[in-house]
Amino acid sequence: MDIKKLERLHPELGITYLKPQRRVGLIVVLTGYGKGKTSSAVGMVVRACGHGMKVSMIQFMKGDIYTGEWDGIRNLDCDVELIPSGMGFCGIQGNPYPHAVHREAAQQAIRLAREKVESGRYDLIVLDEINNALKLNLVNLEQVLELIRLKPPLMHLVLTGRDAHPDIVALTDTVSEVQEIKHAYRKDIEPQPGIDY
Amino acid sequence: MDIKKLERLHPELGITYLKPQRRVGLIVVLTGYGKGKTSSAVGMVVRACGHGMKVSMIQFMKGDIYTGEWDGIRNLDCDVELIPSGMGFCGIQGNPYPHAVHREAAQQAIRLAREKVESGRYDLIVLDEINNALKLNLVNLEQVLELIRLKPPLMHLVLTGRDAHPDIVALTDTVSEVQEIKHAYRKDIEPQPGIDY
Repeated sequence: MDIKKLERLHPELGITYLKPQRRVGLIVVLTGYGKGKTSSAVGMVVRACGHGMKVSMIQFMKGDIYTGEWDGIRNLDCDVELIPSGMGFCGIQGNPYPHAVHREAAQQAIRLAREKVESGRYDLIVLDEINNALKLNLVNLEQVLELIRLKPPLMHLVLTGRDAHPDIVALTDTVSEVQEIKHAYRKDIEPQPGIDY
Repeated sequence: MDIKKLERLHPELGITYLKPQRRVGLIVVLTGYGKGKTSSAVGMVVRACGHGMKVSMIQFMKGDIYTGEWDGIRNLDCDVELIPSGMGFCGIQGNPYPHAVHREAAQQAIRLAREKVESGRYDLIVLDEINNALKLNLVNLEQVLELIRLKPPLMHLVLTGRDAHPDIVALTDTVSEVQEIKHAYRKDIEPQPGIDY
């Protein structure tokens, strides 16, 4: 089913390969209420894959509803793993699990994240929706700060989710707030595959 | 180099597969000055890949400087193509090409985009940095509006880049504005592979 995957319209153009004089392991936060935080993190996973980096993405609030990035990332021929660890969105209508169950799932996920951060074997670790998990008291602020302190100097760490904690923002290099200007669901359009999940 | 790519921490959790009662081809705009527009579009490409969709991504301003998503998307075992069509960022210091050369490249790209939109063969088309291309007068507003009018009803169209035109925003379903709260380059940190390119 594969077609020509990279076609350059202007092959006469020489390609410049940037190489930073100083490598830095960045801490990046993607927060805000608009669409595009998890998908942006997935995009960075793909970028890192293009550079031959080793990547782990742990999803804190997702695991109950299928989302296309699971198979998308599985289809990446790279040293990339995706671990959905959550019991779905805690407190969202229709989610049947009590807070203690969500918390235990998130605790298991953050222990795993810590192991992976401490292992020193990854170039990029993404903690997807960890900001929400913190806001909902599924993990503790101190646990997230500890992960940041343990981060190897050259490893990138990306944290996504609404309501990023100011103490975390204070420690990060790059923070984007995705604001919702419009969203299809306000016109009663259901979530659409490929875009919303 | 491949490792276990999808591990679920809670396999006892049943997975729900959403299926919208009404399929809609969405128009999505990702704009603003913060980091995370192109990477978010790449994330949607991965999501669409997970759903077995056919995707084309055309990059309007990129083509001269290597970026990891080129090889990342090439490594996706999906019906996905990426076409860098630009001569780099027009007007950015160090870019050697005059406006007319940038415009001709962008004109070639938008003709290609139109062919692809009209073909009806794609589930998702991403026009990366087209908002900048319009702002810089490399393409005309009417050309972009025409693409939107020609869009097959079930095809998703994603337009990225700073300074989205209000006439385009008016026609879209979902618009996110990515605001820069912090950015590493303000601390004189060079762009880092896997995160910034």
